[in-house]
Amino acid sequence: MDKVRVIEVKRSIFESNDQDADKLRKELRESKTFLLNLMSSPGSGKTTTLTRTIEVLKDKYRIGVMEADIDSDVDAKTIAATGVKSIQLHTGGMCHLDADMTRQGIKELDVTDVDFAILENVGNLVCPAEFDTGSTKNAMILSVPEGHDKPLKYPLMFSICDVVLINKIDVMPYFDFDLEKCKQYIHMRNPEAKVIPICAKTGEGIGQWTDWLSEQIEESIK
Amino acid sequence: MDKVRVIEVKRSIFESNDQDADKLRKELRESKTFLLNLMSSPGSGKTTTLTRTIEVLKDKYRIGVMEADIDSDVDAKTIAATGVKSIQLHTGGMCHLDADMTRQGIKELDVTDVDFAILENVGNLVCPAEFDTGSTKNAMILSVPEGHDKPLKYPLMFSICDVVLINKIDVMPYFDFDLEKCKQYIHMRNPEAKVIPICAKTGEGIGQWTDWLSEQIEESIK
Repeated sequence: MDKVRVIEVKRSIFESNDQDADKLRKELRESKTFLLNLMSSPGSGKTTTLTRTIEVLKDKYRIGVMEADIDSDVDAKTIAATGVKSIQLHTGGMCHLDADMTRQGIKELDVTDVDFAILENVGNLVCPAEFDTGSTKNAMILSVPEGHDKPLKYPLMFSICDVVLINKIDVMPYFDFDLEKCKQYIHMRNPEAKVIPICAKTGEGIGQWTDWLSEQIEESIK
Repeated sequence: MDKVRVIEVKRSIFESNDQDADKLRKELRESKTFLLNLMSSPGSGKTTTLTRTIEVLKDKYRIGVMEADIDSDVDAKTIAATGVKSIQLHTGGMCHLDADMTRQGIKELDVTDVDFAILENVGNLVCPAEFDTGSTKNAMILSVPEGHDKPLKYPLMFSICDVVLINKIDVMPYFDFDLEKCKQYIHMRNPEAKVIPICAKTGEGIGQWTDWLSEQIEESIK
Protein backbone atom coordinates (compact mmCIF):
# COMPACT_ATOMS: atom_id res chain seq x y z
CA MET A 1 0.00 0.00 0.00
CA ASP A 2 1.38 3.38 -1.03
CA LYS A 3 2.04 6.08 1.50
CA VAL A 4 -0.99 8.37 1.79
CA ARG A 5 -0.49 11.94 0.54
CA VAL A 6 -1.42 14.45 3.22
CA ILE A 7 -2.51 18.01 2.38
CA GLU A 8 -2.75 20.70 5.08
CA VAL A 9 -5.69 22.83 3.95
CA LYS A 10 -5.74 26.51 4.90
CA ARG A 11 -8.66 28.48 6.20
CA SER A 12 -10.49 30.32 3.43
CA ILE A 13 -9.75 33.97 2.78
CA PHE A 14 -12.93 34.54 0.78
CA GLU A 15 -15.71 36.63 2.21
CA SER A 16 -18.58 34.84 0.58
CA ASN A 17 -18.38 31.08 0.87
CA ASP A 18 -21.70 30.68 -0.96
CA GLN A 19 -20.46 32.53 -4.05
CA ASP A 20 -17.22 30.60 -3.97
CA ALA A 21 -19.12 27.31 -3.66
CA ASP A 22 -21.28 28.15 -6.70
CA LYS A 23 -18.12 28.97 -8.64
CA LEU A 24 -16.51 25.64 -7.71
CA ARG A 25 -19.71 23.76 -8.60
CA LYS A 26 -19.67 25.40 -12.06
CA GLU A 27 -15.97 24.54 -12.56
CA LEU A 28 -16.64 20.91 -11.62
CA ARG A 29 -19.60 20.76 -14.02
CA GLU A 30 -17.37 22.09 -16.81
CA SER A 31 -14.68 19.50 -16.08
CA LYS A 32 -17.41 16.79 -16.00
CA THR A 33 -16.64 15.83 -12.43
CA PHE A 34 -19.43 14.92 -10.02
CA LEU A 35 -18.52 15.82 -6.42
CA LEU A 36 -20.25 14.09 -3.51
CA ASN A 37 -19.94 15.66 -0.05
CA LEU A 38 -20.42 12.89 2.51
CA MET A 39 -21.19 13.93 6.07
CA SER A 40 -22.11 12.22 9.36
CA SER A 41 -21.38 11.95 13.07
CA PRO A 42 -18.11 10.32 14.12
CA GLY A 43 -18.38 6.55 13.86
CA SER A 44 -21.52 6.28 11.74
CA GLY A 45 -19.71 4.30 9.04
CA LYS A 46 -18.62 6.81 6.37
CA THR A 47 -15.42 4.98 5.45
CA THR A 48 -16.98 1.51 5.35
CA THR A 49 -19.85 2.86 3.21
CA LEU A 50 -17.35 4.51 0.87
CA THR A 51 -15.33 1.29 0.55
CA ARG A 52 -18.52 -0.59 -0.46
CA THR A 53 -19.50 2.18 -2.87
CA ILE A 54 -16.08 2.16 -4.52
CA GLU A 55 -16.19 -1.66 -4.93
CA VAL A 56 -19.45 -1.36 -6.89
CA LEU A 57 -18.63 1.71 -8.98
CA LYS A 58 -14.89 1.61 -9.61
CA ASP A 59 -15.13 -0.20 -12.94
CA LYS A 60 -17.83 2.19 -14.15
CA TYR A 61 -16.32 5.54 -13.13
CA ARG A 62 -12.89 6.98 -12.50
CA ILE A 63 -13.07 7.71 -8.76
CA GLY A 64 -11.04 10.09 -6.58
CA VAL A 65 -11.43 10.46 -2.81
CA MET A 66 -10.53 13.29 -0.42
CA GLU A 67 -10.51 12.19 3.21
CA ALA A 68 -10.85 15.14 5.55
CA ASP A 69 -9.72 14.69 9.12
CA ILE A 70 -8.54 16.89 11.91
CA ASP A 71 -5.64 14.53 12.40
CA SER A 72 -4.62 10.95 11.55
CA ASP A 73 -4.74 9.16 8.21
CA VAL A 74 -6.38 5.86 9.18
CA ASP A 75 -9.35 6.41 6.83
CA ALA A 76 -7.22 7.50 3.89
CA LYS A 77 -5.17 4.31 4.25
CA THR A 78 -8.36 2.22 4.13
CA ILE A 79 -9.53 4.04 1.00
CA ALA A 80 -6.09 3.84 -0.65
CA ALA A 81 -6.29 0.05 -0.24
CA THR A 82 -9.31 -0.01 -2.60
CA GLY A 83 -6.98 1.10 -5.39
CA VAL A 84 -8.66 4.43 -6.23
CA LYS A 85 -6.86 7.76 -6.20
CA SER A 86 -7.04 9.29 -2.74
CA ILE A 87 -5.58 12.05 -0.64
CA GLN A 88 -5.83 13.04 3.00
CA LEU A 89 -6.86 16.60 3.88
CA HIS A 90 -5.82 17.82 7.32
CA THR A 91 -7.97 20.67 8.56
CA GLY A 92 -5.65 21.77 11.37
CA GLY A 93 -8.35 21.56 14.03
CA MET A 94 -11.10 23.04 11.83
CA CYS A 95 -14.41 21.26 12.25
CA HIS A 96 -15.62 21.52 8.66
CA LEU A 97 -14.52 22.23 5.09
CA ASP A 98 -15.65 25.26 3.11
CA ALA A 99 -15.57 25.77 -0.65
CA ASP A 100 -12.04 27.15 -0.76
CA MET A 101 -10.64 24.30 1.33
CA THR A 102 -12.47 21.86 -0.96
CA ARG A 103 -10.94 23.62 -4.00
CA GLN A 104 -7.45 23.16 -2.47
CA GLY A 105 -8.26 19.45 -2.16
CA ILE A 106 -9.69 19.18 -5.70
CA LYS A 107 -6.53 20.82 -7.07
CA GLU A 108 -4.23 18.39 -5.23
CA LEU A 109 -6.37 15.37 -6.12
CA ASP A 110 -6.34 16.52 -9.78
CA VAL A 111 -9.75 15.72 -11.23
CA THR A 112 -8.84 15.90 -14.93
CA ASP A 113 -9.11 12.09 -14.96
CA VAL A 114 -11.87 11.79 -12.30
CA ASP A 115 -15.61 11.42 -13.07
CA PHE A 116 -16.71 10.83 -9.51
CA ALA A 117 -14.97 12.75 -6.72
CA ILE A 118 -15.87 12.18 -3.08
CA LEU A 119 -15.22 14.42 -0.12
CA GLU A 120 -15.45 12.58 3.19
CA ASN A 121 -16.12 15.55 5.45
CA VAL A 122 -15.10 15.83 9.15
CA GLY A 123 -17.31 13.72 11.46
CA ASN A 124 -19.69 16.37 12.79
CA LEU A 125 -23.43 17.01 12.38
CA VAL A 126 -23.22 20.74 13.08
CA CYS A 127 -20.55 22.81 11.36
CA PRO A 128 -20.23 21.01 7.99
CA ALA A 129 -23.93 21.74 7.40
CA GLU A 130 -23.24 25.48 7.55
CA PHE A 131 -20.64 25.59 4.79
CA ASP A 132 -21.47 24.80 1.17
CA THR A 133 -18.42 22.93 -0.15
CA GLY A 134 -19.34 23.40 -3.81
CA SER A 135 -20.33 19.75 -4.08
CA THR A 136 -22.78 18.56 -6.74
CA LYS A 137 -24.78 16.62 -4.13
CA ASN A 138 -24.78 16.33 -0.34
CA ALA A 139 -25.19 12.98 1.38
CA MET A 140 -25.26 12.10 5.03
CA ILE A 141 -25.21 8.90 7.03
CA LEU A 142 -27.26 8.45 10.17
CA SER A 143 -26.53 5.17 11.91
CA VAL A 144 -29.15 3.22 13.86
CA PRO A 145 -27.33 3.43 17.25
CA GLU A 146 -27.49 7.25 17.08
CA GLY A 147 -31.29 7.16 17.37
CA HIS A 148 -34.22 8.19 15.18
CA ASP A 149 -34.60 11.61 16.85
CA LYS A 150 -31.49 13.15 15.28
CA PRO A 151 -33.39 15.13 12.57
CA LEU A 152 -35.11 16.98 15.44
CA LYS A 153 -31.80 17.94 17.02
CA TYR A 154 -29.64 18.70 13.99
CA PRO A 155 -32.19 20.28 11.65
CA LEU A 156 -29.82 22.09 9.28
CA MET A 157 -27.80 18.98 8.40
CA PHE A 158 -30.92 17.08 7.37
CA SER A 159 -32.36 20.04 5.47
CA ILE A 160 -29.32 20.43 3.18
CA CYS A 161 -28.86 16.74 2.28
CA ASP A 162 -30.10 15.29 -1.02
CA VAL A 163 -29.89 11.78 0.39
CA VAL A 164 -29.79 10.27 3.88
CA LEU A 165 -28.35 6.77 4.30
CA ILE A 166 -29.58 4.99 7.40
CA ASN A 167 -26.67 2.70 8.21
CA LYS A 168 -26.17 -0.29 10.54
CA ILE A 169 -29.70 -1.59 9.99
CA ASP A 170 -28.37 -5.05 10.95
CA VAL A 171 -28.34 -3.98 14.62
CA MET A 172 -31.88 -2.54 14.53
CA PRO A 173 -33.19 -5.35 16.84
CA TYR A 174 -30.80 -4.21 19.62
CA PHE A 175 -31.77 -0.53 19.59
CA ASP A 176 -34.99 1.42 20.06
CA PHE A 177 -34.90 2.77 16.52
CA ASP A 178 -38.16 3.51 14.70
CA LEU A 179 -37.41 3.67 10.96
CA GLU A 180 -40.80 5.07 9.98
CA LYS A 181 -40.57 7.80 12.61
CA CYS A 182 -37.04 8.59 11.45
CA LYS A 183 -38.19 8.98 7.83
CA GLN A 184 -41.04 11.17 9.00
CA TYR A 185 -38.64 13.45 10.97
CA ILE A 186 -36.24 13.64 8.00
CA HIS A 187 -39.09 14.65 5.67
CA MET A 188 -40.25 17.27 8.18
CA ARG A 189 -36.84 18.91 7.66
CA ASN A 190 -36.55 18.16 3.98
CA PRO A 191 -39.50 16.73 2.02
CA GLU A 192 -37.27 16.10 -1.02
CA ALA A 193 -34.63 14.01 0.76
CA LYS A 194 -34.15 10.47 -0.52
CA VAL A 195 -33.84 8.00 2.38
CA ILE A 196 -32.04 4.68 1.85
CA PRO A 197 -31.57 2.13 4.65
CA ILE A 198 -28.27 0.27 4.30
CA CYS A 199 -25.84 -1.97 6.10
CA ALA A 200 -22.34 -1.13 4.91
CA LYS A 201 -20.96 -4.15 6.79
CA THR A 202 -23.14 -6.76 5.01
CA GLY A 203 -23.82 -4.81 1.79
CA GLU A 204 -27.59 -4.65 2.26
CA GLY A 205 -29.14 -1.67 0.46
CA ILE A 206 -25.84 -0.69 -1.20
CA GLY A 207 -27.31 -1.50 -4.64
CA GLN A 208 -30.11 1.02 -4.19
CA TRP A 209 -27.58 3.63 -3.06
CA THR A 210 -25.17 3.05 -5.96
CA ASP A 211 -28.09 3.10 -8.43
CA TRP A 212 -29.15 6.49 -7.07
CA LEU A 213 -25.54 7.71 -7.22
CA SER A 214 -25.08 6.46 -10.81
CA GLU A 215 -28.16 8.39 -11.93
CA GLN A 216 -26.81 11.58 -10.34
CA ILE A 217 -23.35 11.07 -11.81
CA GLU A 218 -24.72 10.38 -15.32
CA GLU A 219 -26.83 13.53 -15.10
CA SER A 220 -23.81 15.54 -14.07
CA ILE A 221 -21.14 14.32 -16.48
CA LYS A 222 -23.21 13.88 -19.66
CA MET B 1 -44.47 17.74 33.51
CA ASP B 2 -43.73 21.47 33.64
CA LYS B 3 -42.96 23.40 30.52
CA VAL B 4 -39.21 23.52 29.92
CA ARG B 5 -37.59 26.94 30.26
CA VAL B 6 -35.61 27.84 27.14
CA ILE B 7 -32.70 30.29 27.22
CA GLU B 8 -31.22 31.72 24.01
CA VAL B 9 -27.52 32.07 24.82
CA LYS B 10 -25.55 34.80 23.06
CA ARG B 11 -22.11 34.53 21.55
CA SER B 12 -19.38 35.63 23.96
CA ILE B 13 -17.96 39.12 23.71
CA PHE B 14 -14.86 38.28 25.75
CA GLU B 15 -11.50 38.12 24.08
CA SER B 16 -9.98 35.47 26.24
CA ASN B 17 -12.22 32.50 26.82
CA ASP B 18 -9.55 30.77 28.91
CA GLN B 19 -9.36 33.64 31.40
CA ASP B 20 -13.12 33.85 31.55
CA ALA B 21 -13.36 30.08 32.13
CA ASP B 22 -10.89 30.28 35.04
CA LYS B 23 -12.95 33.12 36.52
CA LEU B 24 -16.18 31.10 36.26
CA ARG B 25 -14.48 28.04 37.78
CA LYS B 26 -13.39 30.19 40.75
CA GLU B 27 -16.90 31.62 41.18
CA LEU B 28 -18.40 28.11 41.15
CA ARG B 29 -15.85 26.94 43.70
CA GLU B 30 -16.79 29.87 45.96
CA SER B 31 -20.49 29.06 45.66
CA LYS B 32 -19.70 25.39 46.38
CA THR B 33 -21.12 24.21 43.09
CA PHE B 34 -19.46 21.40 41.15
CA LEU B 35 -19.97 21.79 37.38
CA LEU B 36 -19.67 18.79 35.08
CA ASN B 37 -19.30 19.44 31.34
CA LEU B 38 -20.60 16.35 29.51
CA MET B 39 -19.63 15.96 25.88
CA SER B 40 -20.02 13.34 23.14
CA SER B 41 -21.04 12.66 19.54
CA PRO B 42 -24.72 12.89 18.68
CA GLY B 43 -26.54 9.77 19.80
CA SER B 44 -23.93 8.32 22.15
CA GLY B 45 -26.34 8.35 25.09
CA LYS B 46 -25.69 11.57 27.04
CA THR B 47 -29.29 12.06 28.13
CA THR B 48 -29.89 8.42 29.14
CA THR B 49 -26.61 8.43 31.10
CA LEU B 50 -27.65 11.66 32.83
CA THR B 51 -31.05 10.24 33.72
CA ARG B 52 -29.36 7.23 35.37
CA THR B 53 -26.85 9.47 37.13
CA ILE B 54 -29.61 11.70 38.51
CA GLU B 55 -31.57 8.66 39.78
CA VAL B 56 -28.55 7.57 41.84
CA LEU B 57 -27.42 10.98 43.11
CA LYS B 58 -30.55 13.09 43.48
CA ASP B 59 -31.10 12.25 47.14
CA LYS B 60 -27.46 12.97 47.95
CA TYR B 61 -26.96 16.27 46.08
CA ARG B 62 -29.10 19.16 44.90
CA ILE B 63 -28.79 18.79 41.13
CA GLY B 64 -29.33 21.31 38.32
CA VAL B 65 -29.07 20.53 34.61
CA MET B 66 -28.43 22.75 31.57
CA GLU B 67 -29.29 21.04 28.30
CA ALA B 68 -27.54 22.73 25.39
CA ASP B 69 -28.97 22.14 21.95
CA ILE B 70 -28.95 23.92 18.65
CA ASP B 71 -32.68 23.50 18.51
CA SER B 72 -35.44 21.36 20.08
CA ASP B 73 -36.08 20.62 23.76
CA VAL B 74 -36.60 16.85 23.68
CA ASP B 75 -33.66 16.19 26.04
CA ALA B 76 -34.65 18.92 28.49
CA LYS B 77 -38.13 17.40 28.73
CA THR B 78 -36.60 13.99 29.55
CA ILE B 79 -34.42 15.54 32.25
CA ALA B 80 -37.30 17.63 33.67
CA ALA B 81 -39.23 14.38 34.14
CA THR B 82 -36.58 13.20 36.66
CA GLY B 83 -37.71 16.03 38.95
CA VAL B 84 -34.44 17.98 39.12
CA LYS B 85 -34.12 21.65 38.21
CA SER B 86 -33.36 21.98 34.50
CA ILE B 87 -33.22 24.54 31.72
CA GLN B 88 -32.71 24.35 27.99
CA LEU B 89 -29.97 26.44 26.39
CA HIS B 90 -30.40 27.21 22.71
CA THR B 91 -27.13 28.04 21.00
CA GLY B 92 -28.65 29.55 17.85
CA GLY B 93 -26.69 27.31 15.50
CA MET B 94 -23.45 27.48 17.51
CA CYS B 95 -21.67 24.15 17.72
CA HIS B 96 -20.30 24.53 21.25
CA LEU B 97 -20.57 26.51 24.47
CA ASP B 98 -17.83 28.79 25.76
CA ALA B 99 -17.36 30.10 29.31
CA ASP B 100 -19.55 33.18 28.85
CA MET B 101 -22.41 31.18 27.37
CA THR B 102 -22.07 28.74 30.27
CA ARG B 103 -22.16 31.67 32.72
CA GLN B 104 -25.44 32.86 31.10
CA GLY B 105 -26.82 29.36 31.70
CA ILE B 106 -25.55 29.19 35.29
CA LYS B 107 -27.19 32.54 36.02
CA GLU B 108 -30.55 31.43 34.63
CA LEU B 109 -30.34 28.03 36.34
CA ASP B 110 -29.50 29.80 39.63
CA VAL B 111 -27.00 27.61 41.47
CA THR B 112 -27.40 29.11 44.95
CA ASP B 113 -29.26 25.90 45.86
CA VAL B 114 -27.31 23.55 43.55
CA ASP B 115 -24.33 21.38 44.64
CA PHE B 116 -24.01 19.47 41.41
CA ALA B 117 -24.60 21.33 38.14
CA ILE B 118 -24.41 19.56 34.80
CA LEU B 119 -23.93 21.04 31.35
CA GLU B 120 -24.96 18.67 28.58
CA ASN B 121 -22.93 20.18 25.74
CA VAL B 122 -23.86 20.12 22.03
CA GLY B 123 -23.34 16.68 20.42
CA ASN B 124 -20.00 17.20 18.70
CA LEU B 125 -16.50 15.77 19.20
CA VAL B 126 -14.68 18.72 17.66
CA CYS B 127 -15.67 22.25 18.67
CA PRO B 128 -16.68 21.74 22.33
CA ALA B 129 -13.15 20.45 22.99
CA GLU B 130 -11.68 23.80 21.95
CA PHE B 131 -13.61 25.94 24.42
CA ASP B 132 -13.10 25.69 28.16
CA THR B 133 -16.58 26.15 29.67
CA GLY B 134 -15.31 26.85 33.17
CA SER B 135 -16.46 23.43 34.33
CA THR B 136 -14.89 21.75 37.36
CA LYS B 137 -14.46 18.49 35.43
CA ASN B 138 -14.89 17.39 31.81
CA ALA B 139 -16.50 14.07 30.94
CA MET B 140 -17.17 12.48 27.60
CA ILE B 141 -19.10 9.49 26.37
CA LEU B 142 -17.84 7.28 23.58
CA SER B 143 -20.37 4.64 22.59
CA VAL B 144 -19.39 1.20 21.34
CA PRO B 145 -21.02 1.58 17.87
CA GLU B 146 -18.79 4.60 17.16
CA GLY B 147 -15.68 2.40 17.16
CA HIS B 148 -12.53 2.12 19.26
CA ASP B 149 -10.46 4.28 16.89
CA LYS B 150 -12.08 7.60 17.85
CA PRO B 151 -9.24 8.76 20.15
CA LEU B 152 -6.98 8.65 17.08
CA LYS B 153 -9.32 10.88 15.08
CA TYR B 154 -10.51 13.37 17.71
CA PRO B 155 -7.36 13.78 19.78
CA LEU B 156 -8.19 17.07 21.52
CA MET B 157 -11.51 15.87 22.94
CA PHE B 158 -9.88 12.87 24.59
CA SER B 159 -6.92 14.90 25.86
CA ILE B 160 -9.09 17.40 27.78
CA CYS B 161 -11.43 14.89 29.46
CA ASP B 162 -10.96 13.79 33.07
CA VAL B 163 -13.15 10.75 32.50
CA VAL B 164 -14.30 8.79 29.46
CA LEU B 165 -17.45 6.67 29.75
CA ILE B 166 -17.62 3.86 27.22
CA ASN B 167 -21.35 3.44 26.76
CA LYS B 168 -23.57 0.77 25.15
CA ILE B 169 -21.29 -2.09 26.24
CA ASP B 170 -24.36 -4.37 26.00
CA VAL B 171 -24.05 -4.33 22.19
CA MET B 172 -20.30 -5.10 22.19
CA PRO B 173 -20.91 -8.59 20.68
CA TYR B 174 -22.47 -7.03 17.55
CA PHE B 175 -19.66 -4.56 16.81
CA ASP B 176 -15.93 -4.86 16.13
CA PHE B 177 -15.02 -2.93 19.25
CA ASP B 178 -11.77 -3.70 21.07
CA LEU B 179 -12.07 -2.30 24.62
CA GLU B 180 -8.38 -2.81 25.48
CA LYS B 181 -7.27 -1.08 22.28
CA CYS B 182 -9.70 1.75 22.99
CA LYS B 183 -8.28 2.26 26.51
CA GLN B 184 -4.78 2.21 25.06
CA TYR B 185 -5.68 4.90 22.47
CA ILE B 186 -7.37 7.06 25.14
CA HIS B 187 -4.28 6.83 27.37
CA MET B 188 -2.05 7.73 24.42
CA ARG B 189 -3.95 11.04 24.32
CA ASN B 190 -4.36 11.43 28.05
CA PRO B 191 -2.55 9.10 30.47
CA GLU B 192 -4.55 10.52 33.42
CA ALA B 193 -8.02 9.86 31.97
CA LYS B 194 -10.27 7.58 33.98
CA VAL B 195 -12.06 5.08 31.71
CA ILE B 196 -15.36 3.54 32.86
CA PRO B 197 -17.33 1.09 30.68
CA ILE B 198 -21.08 1.50 31.23
CA CYS B 199 -24.46 0.60 29.83
CA ALA B 200 -26.84 3.47 30.55
CA LYS B 201 -29.76 1.35 29.31
CA THR B 202 -29.23 -1.54 31.79
CA GLY B 203 -27.39 0.39 34.52
CA GLU B 204 -24.18 -1.64 34.27
CA GLY B 205 -21.13 0.33 35.46
CA ILE B 206 -23.25 3.30 36.61
CA GLY B 207 -22.23 2.63 40.24
CA GLN B 208 -18.54 3.03 39.41
CA TRP B 209 -19.32 6.25 37.53
CA THR B 210 -21.43 7.78 40.32
CA ASP B 211 -18.79 6.78 42.92
CA TRP B 212 -16.15 8.62 40.90
CA LEU B 213 -18.49 11.61 40.52
CA SER B 214 -19.32 11.68 44.25
CA GLU B 215 -15.60 11.81 45.11
CA GLN B 216 -15.10 14.76 42.74
CA ILE B 217 -18.18 16.58 44.04
CA GLU B 218 -17.16 16.08 47.70
CA GLU B 219 -13.70 17.40 46.94
CA SER B 220 -15.19 20.43 45.24
CA ILE B 221 -17.92 21.46 47.67
CA LYS B 222 -16.22 20.71 51.01
